[in-house]
Amino acid sequence: VGSPKPRHLLATEDEVIELIRDTIGSGIEAFGLRDDAAVLDAPAGGPLVLSVDSVVEGVHVDLALCSPGDVGWKALMGALSDLAAMGAAPLGALVALCVPGGSGRGDLAVGVMAGVAEASTVAGCPVVGGDVSGAAELVVAVTVLGTVADGGPPPVSRAGARAGNVVLVTGACGGSAAGLRQLRGADPGSDRGQSYRRPTARLREGEVARRAGAHAMIDVSDGLALDLHRLADASGVGFTLDDVPVAEGATLEEALGGGEDYELVIAVEERIVDALSSSFEAEGLRTPVSVGTFTSDPSRRLLKGRELERLGWQHRVG
Amino acid sequence: VGSPKPRHLLATEDEVIELIRDTIGSGIEAFGLRDDAAVLDAPAGGPLVLSVDSVVEGVHVDLALCSPGDVGWKALMGALSDLAAMGAAPLGALVALCVPGGSGRGDLAVGVMAGVAEASTVAGCPVVGGDVSGAAELVVAVTVLGTVADGGPPPVSRAGARAGNVVLVTGACGGSAAGLRQLRGADPGSDRGQSYRRPTARLREGEVARRAGAHAMIDVSDGLALDLHRLADASGVGFTLDDVPVAEGATLEEALGGGEDYELVIAVEERIVDALSSSFEAEGLRTPVSVGTFTSDPSRRLLKGRELERLGWQHRVG
Repeated sequence: VGSPKPRHLLATEDEVIELIRDTIGSGIEAFGLRDDAAVLDAPAGGPLVLSVDSVVEGVHVDLALCSPGDVGWKALMGALSDLAAMGAAPLGALVALCVPGGSGRGDLAVGVMAGVAEASTVAGCPVVGGDVSGAAELVVAVTVLGTVADGGPPPVSRAGARAGNVVLVTGACGGSAAGLRQLRGADPGSDRGQSYRRPTARLREGEVARRAGAHAMIDVSDGLALDLHRLADASGVGFTLDDVPVAEGATLEEALGGGEDYELVIAVEERIVDALSSSFEAEGLRTPVSVGTFTSDPSRRLLKGRELERLGWQHRVG
Repeated sequence: VGSPKPRHLLATEDEVIELIRDTIGSGIEAFGLRDDAAVLDAPAGGPLVLSVDSVVEGVHVDLALCSPGDVGWKALMGALSDLAAMGAAPLGALVALCVPGGSGRGDLAVGVMAGVAEASTVAGCPVVGGDVSGAAELVVAVTVLGTVADGGPPPVSRAGARAGNVVLVTGACGGSAAGLRQLRGADPGSDRGQSYRRPTARLREGEVARRAGAHAMIDVSDGLALDLHRLADASGVGFTLDDVPVAEGATLEEALGGGEDYELVIAVEERIVDALSSSFEAEGLRTPVSVGTFTSDPSRRLLKGRELERLGWQHRVG
């Protein structure tokens, strides 16, 4: 009670949580200490799908290139992309926010959570809980909960691709890496790295692909090549690609190894590709692009007849 | 493929995740990149209860006083204590692990996850997912999912205490703070800070109290006094305490302001205290201690007739 403290003097978790609530309001359903835990209705009749993803300053993001809001957005969308790759719809998210001290900590915390709230609104995924801690550097760990409670097929794993399945991609890759390159350079380009700063999880695409009968899916989080190899590893198959879709302004290497595009790679039987494409169109989504075929020999992983390297962003630990 | 790298040369997330799986095996149901997300059966007929809690090196723990395993244990038990305070049973946990680089990073990651796995076994809460990142310091953010799918009362909030309710505590407080003091001193005591290093969430106690009809609950995570004030704030009541149970070797100040004891504070109608105590005994649990009464004037918060300060550990942000 009394007049609010200036933001840069905020010291305790409770104070930061109050500020986040006061500033962001309706974008955040529940954050922090209102109760010990969040309570949600369980979905009727479908399994739960859960994933956690962290964004760490200096490892995944550079605050010289991204705003705090971008970091919050990227953290939630990165976690939601894992739900998209299972064909699941989001039910809610929990955010563990670790913010460094010093002046401006209140602004940093509020900025990150404002970006989380924007992504939450766009994705239709309420923030149902959260926690604030001090730390030496900014860490945003987001857990997302989803379900497939629509009576359709179960969540789609990485492991279901079969030889003869078509390899579909929901869109062009490399845009995020190109955006990062532009932000680092003298000319940030006309969209100022939007694809890098504000990627979107393909939640609708994942749901439609699951209901259409996709055998396997993965999201392009670390690079189209690396993520395709991971899907092929899990499924015990090879692949032969004719070509890959490269985002405008991106290079082939960025498309293959860039990551954070969040396009989905989908394995489907050839006979249902047309029906799947029609379902995408009916939902107002871009038609997925056929880029090749999964094959039986797991040691053969080809692009235009040449071996495809495991290009991609392997997050270095430390 | 090929001979394993020495642990101190591990660099990528995938390598650390493989090492964790290889070392810990059955204690961890699923961790890391096996699929994009974990899939769990939804509980039949009960709501979901979710919470997230972070442990940050240098803020919440000091690796000179705790082993990596202690940190992992404390991180999972701290999150589970929030479920206990709602009267919920755990369904699963997800662990976001951020580990600093340098030599020994593999040992640190495995040590933390070994402690998580031990706590997981003791609490009956499988680790269903996780993620590894680099970071400047160790951060362990744990999200837990639980439910009350037993046909009994709904999750117990902090806000339900009524004037005239009895204040129960499930056990003596201050043991964790006393353990930390002993670890910091020359004589770590006979239990070597066990209460501090290996606290346990009162999951069974919380469930039994909910089924017996508790009106409100909170766990003692930041200090009995501060957490009691928080429950009273949320409920709009005051309280008058006759005394508080102090753990062996602890001071009254440690009992009131120490935190991380994870005992539960329970608000119940006086007429059901006996039945609640019998339920605890029937389950082989210690009988809760009656320490006072909730009162109607929210501005009166008394211990032995004197105003009770908001003693407790307010985690400083930065």
